[in-house]
Amino acid sequence: MKSHRATITLHLPERTGFVNITPDIEEVVEESSIQEGLCLVNAMHITASVFINDDEPGLHEDYIRWLERLAPFNAGTDPAKGGYLHNRSGEENGDAHHKRQIMGREVVLAITHGQLDFGPWEQVFYGEFDGRRDKRVLIKIIGE
Amino acid sequence: MKSHRATITLHLPERTGFVNITPDIEEVVEESSIQEGLCLVNAMHITASVFINDDEPGLHEDYIRWLERLAPFNAGTDPAKGGYLHNRSGEENGDAHHKRQIMGREVVLAITHGQLDFGPWEQVFYGEFDGRRDKRVLIKIIGE
Amino acid sequence: MKSHRATITLHLPERTGFVNITPDIEEVVEESSIQEGLCLVNAMHITASVFINDDEPGLHEDYIRWLERLAPFNAGTDPAKGGYLHNRSGEENGDAHHKRQIMGREVVLAITHGQLDFGPWEQVFYGEFDGRRDKRVLIKIIGE
Repeated sequence: MKSHRATITLHLPERTGFVNITPDIEEVVEESSIQEGLCLVNAMHITASVFINDDEPGLHEDYIRWLERLAPFNAGTDPAKGGYLHNRSGEENGDAHHKRQIMGREVVLAITHGQLDFGPWEQVFYGEFDGRRDKRVLIKIIGE
Repeated sequence: MKSHRATITLHLPERTGFVNITPDIEEVVEESSIQEGLCLVNAMHITASVFINDDEPGLHEDYIRWLERLAPFNAGTDPAKGGYLHNRSGEENGDAHHKRQIMGREVVLAITHGQLDFGPWEQVFYGEFDGRRDKRVLIKIIGE
Repeated sequence: MKSHRATITLHLPERTGFVNITPDIEEVVEESSIQEGLCLVNAMHITASVFINDDEPGLHEDYIRWLERLAPFNAGTDPAKGGYLHNRSGEENGDAHHKRQIMGREVVLAITHGQLDFGPWEQVFYGEFDGRRDKRVLIKIIGE
């Protein structure tokens, strides 16, 4: 059994946004020289997601609007006024911890014949919900 | 280390529905002859899910009604009228890409003594949100 | 390749709550003596979750309030009155099956140099949505 580990660092200028990290993962898979295995890709931060969906800008705008409806940004600390108790800790990112739960922390990808074993439209995205600072994504591959 | 790969093809006659794919996965695990390992099961399409829950028809109807409330079907392209920007690409499945995020893309299953290592009620489902065409599920097993 | 399996049993006195199970997982990783690999941690019950987020009590209260808004508890069986068809089966936990879908069934963790390979704030939680009985979490590790 072989294993390989890498991290990617992202820094989004906005609070919220999506980045297609598929090419980065493909590079790490190639570096690993693993032909058959599993590849874990996870956000190392708890206000960010890694997920698989379509590389279509309209959809990404839809997601952002939808997540804002399900877990609205609110810097306050009073739940009766839409705030988050979490913000009592001095942060304003209560909503981001909720948005990340909807979109997920991680994906696990199959590696077959040395390549990511994808369906026709699958692309891997980093989802940022509390940006404007460095964040890391972990890639861990095991196989042979 | 051994690895094994298979796909299942599904074709649901309706837009939305759930199919218990546990027997298919069990067959693939047996074919693999892997005794101890991990088994990834993922939708290869981005308007479908693979998830684990109860094989109970009432619950499945509840899920469909609930997902419709969280991300309603709307063929339109104007967010102000409940449409999805994604539908500008000529599709009518913006809602399906959202429903899939709630239900998830994949599950990872433990294999112990050559069997799926399940709790008492765990069953694996394919969740379709934009059916009436062939879709595939990937099963990738690694272990020994 | 080596593999290791363990279960943790939890029994929450309330219907809903979160328990930090990171120390339990760390112990199992150490027992396994696996240095490089993947560690699956999943709820074996379908009204419970395993997820990663912050160990901050305010956030956990926010999550509980939020999940109650997205999938309210209702012991009834009539969807028109907010009930769940699932409850016709004699249970009152329809809401719990929905909350679990938002928070997820499982996490997959990288093991690097014999340790859980975590970002700065990542902690693993058991999420209970239908407690007051014994429930189990499965830990399965493969690697070398």
